[in-house]
Amino acid sequence: MYSERVSRLTGSLIREILALTQKPGVISFAGGLPAAEVMPALDLADVPQDLRQYGTTEGEPALRERVAADLAALGIASAPERVLITAGSQQGIDLVSKLFIDPGTPVALEAPSYLAAIQSFRFFGARFLPLALSPRGIDPDALRRLIAHDRPAFIYLIPNFQNPAGYSYARDVRRAIAQVLDESGVPLVEDEPYRELMYDPVDRTPIVSLLKQAPWIYYGSLSKTGLPGLRIGYTAASPDLHTLLVRIKQSTDLHTNRVGQWWATRFLTSPDYPAHLERLRTRYRQQRDTMAAALTRHFHDIGDWEVPAGGLFFWVKLRQMCDTRALLTAALAQGVAFMPGEPFYTDQDAPRGMLRLNFSHATAEQIEQGMAKLAAVIRAAPTLEQAAAT
Amino acid sequence: MYSERVSRLTGSLIREILALTQKPGVISFAGGLPAAEVMPALDLADVPQDLRQYGTTEGEPALRERVAADLAALGIASAPERVLITAGSQQGIDLVSKLFIDPGTPVALEAPSYLAAIQSFRFFGARFLPLALSPRGIDPDALRRLIAHDRPAFIYLIPNFQNPAGYSYARDVRRAIAQVLDESGVPLVEDEPYRELMYDPVDRTPIVSLLKQAPWIYYGSLSKTGLPGLRIGYTAASPDLHTLLVRIKQSTDLHTNRVGQWWATRFLTSPDYPAHLERLRTRYRQQRDTMAAALTRHFHDIGDWEVPAGGLFFWVKLRQMCDTRALLTAALAQGVAFMPGEPFYTDQDAPRGMLRLNFSHATAEQIEQGMAKLAAVIRAAPTLEQAAAT
Repeated sequence: MYSERVSRLTGSLIREILALTQKPGVISFAGGLPAAEVMPALDLADVPQDLRQYGTTEGEPALRERVAADLAALGIASAPERVLITAGSQQGIDLVSKLFIDPGTPVALEAPSYLAAIQSFRFFGARFLPLALSPRGIDPDALRRLIAHDRPAFIYLIPNFQNPAGYSYARDVRRAIAQVLDESGVPLVEDEPYRELMYDPVDRTPIVSLLKQAPWIYYGSLSKTGLPGLRIGYTAASPDLHTLLVRIKQSTDLHTNRVGQWWATRFLTSPDYPAHLERLRTRYRQQRDTMAAALTRHFHDIGDWEVPAGGLFFWVKLRQMCDTRALLTAALAQGVAFMPGEPFYTDQDAPRGMLRLNFSHATAEQIEQGMAKLAAVIRAAPTLEQAAAT
Repeated sequence: MYSERVSRLTGSLIREILALTQKPGVISFAGGLPAAEVMPALDLADVPQDLRQYGTTEGEPALRERVAADLAALGIASAPERVLITAGSQQGIDLVSKLFIDPGTPVALEAPSYLAAIQSFRFFGARFLPLALSPRGIDPDALRRLIAHDRPAFIYLIPNFQNPAGYSYARDVRRAIAQVLDESGVPLVEDEPYRELMYDPVDRTPIVSLLKQAPWIYYGSLSKTGLPGLRIGYTAASPDLHTLLVRIKQSTDLHTNRVGQWWATRFLTSPDYPAHLERLRTRYRQQRDTMAAALTRHFHDIGDWEVPAGGLFFWVKLRQMCDTRALLTAALAQGVAFMPGEPFYTDQDAPRGMLRLNFSHATAEQIEQGMAKLAAVIRAAPTLEQAAAT
């Protein structure tokens, strides 16, 4: 009755978690919500009336120009004609799934990776080729071997302040990955929502800027620095891929909402934009440090983690292996929420003993209280062996 | 390298036409653009700041409530919990394609039908089962035979002021179709963007409101009565289908832009809303009548048509069969544009000798001038036999 892809539809877990975490009184480290206190104002009093009419599939010319200029400054050669404005970078993921994935199509990605990308790729029928992610990135030699053995349709990477792991790729790893992709011609899909949320200096060179041959798609988003409720993101891509993305976007939703695009243009070209980014970084750096201190205080003997140089998340490995989905139920009963690690892996049945903890949305006081509660829940949790025995 | 569906990607024709028709000096009857003069004002000065944050996949509660109340008044039993706010009704089509269509999936629809729906269904691999459309609708007995012979995954219908034909289904046809679908359990996807654009009284009973058993999805849009640039539409659906649509929407774009939803809520609940609809109808009725007069004057011996009781289009059958795509090139050279009939059929290679003429966007003067020019182009065009001989 339904398409075969419906049998692979997942996502109710995350929707249920986010619903539960929005209950009053719950301290949530689960989502990836920006803090309202440091969001730019939504001022639309001057919105032009000509935005009322249908727009073009590619997006508003002024916004495409601004994005292209910003990308050029990063070394990404993208004329405005190769920028496509999307309904958040999530829509970029949907367009890539449509472009590349049939049932059984091999797709390479980090393990762990962004769960809504995994969901979309899985829905379209991807056969996943995961590459272990370390704090320096994926292993370029492992990528070369993977491609030689089982050529993927594309590789999806989040090289800066990765979601969920928070890692940023080392410069030599970026160069080596670009070389492997250029040699093989495997397309790179590089997702970069967190670029501007850098708290300690690290290399952020986009891998697509290092490519000489391989096709590529790069995603940017205004949901982390601007306003997620407006749903504005973009893709830039090598010429052939851009043309296909535009045609696919047309039958998806005709075009992206124009008021959001107008706001985004004004936001990105505002004289206050650099200062806004600095305020964001200052605030989130403080919150990251607050959570780092709380982790040291409450988790020192139950977990291990890296302090992320940017982004929105700590990625904590519990010393006692468990299925953190079971742990979440206990935590919610105590009024605290986090994101279980399992859905960030393509093999989601295996217990991982990993927690993703967001530090951007809660207050400093909530972080301290919530982390203490969460540590208590973890200490009281049955081990995997005990859980299996019940 | 790409997914197999990319080989079925079409749509450049329409994009090219719309690009050409936006050149200065071209009188265009091609698109389906609302007239800016009767659009409501885009006033967003009071937009609440809490819309900046991420929203829910289902949509803003106030808008879902309003839509559900409006649908209840039409006899469509849809609680707010079964309304999903989409990025225009085009996104509803994308969600339905994802929900139902694998390569080879049989899909029943009117011939002719909405070309962007045909494009989306084709892209996902639909095998089309077209049903001839007459001014009274499709033939319910033909539908019964079709279902007995080759059961479709769903049937897609536009029963009111159809695009492109402008026809509205007769009441007895609506009842008979509902009965056939209830007997067979084939899901109905009913697309109704033009409901409020009625110029002469006709029956508009939604067929989904007559169903007792069959699953259904109903699309509404604010792009024709409100502001297309905001990209706000919605689906209502029977419970199982609604749940699946929400989960598919989540991995498509997380949620619809919240500013557009807020504007739509205020628009639909405004005390001026009924008067606004009346102004729209008055204006478009006049333009329809202007085009009807121009057709009688210039096309009386070269074409045949029905005067539509609503919607945005005349659908003209030329007495001399030709491929109207070739005709368009000649018309554009004379500064006038229309939409060729061929792309509205699933068998798009066959010449149809049909033109779709939009009457909502041009001025009365442009309609008179443009129709005179277009008639001259048609009179000068080679016949199909002459064209084949060159």
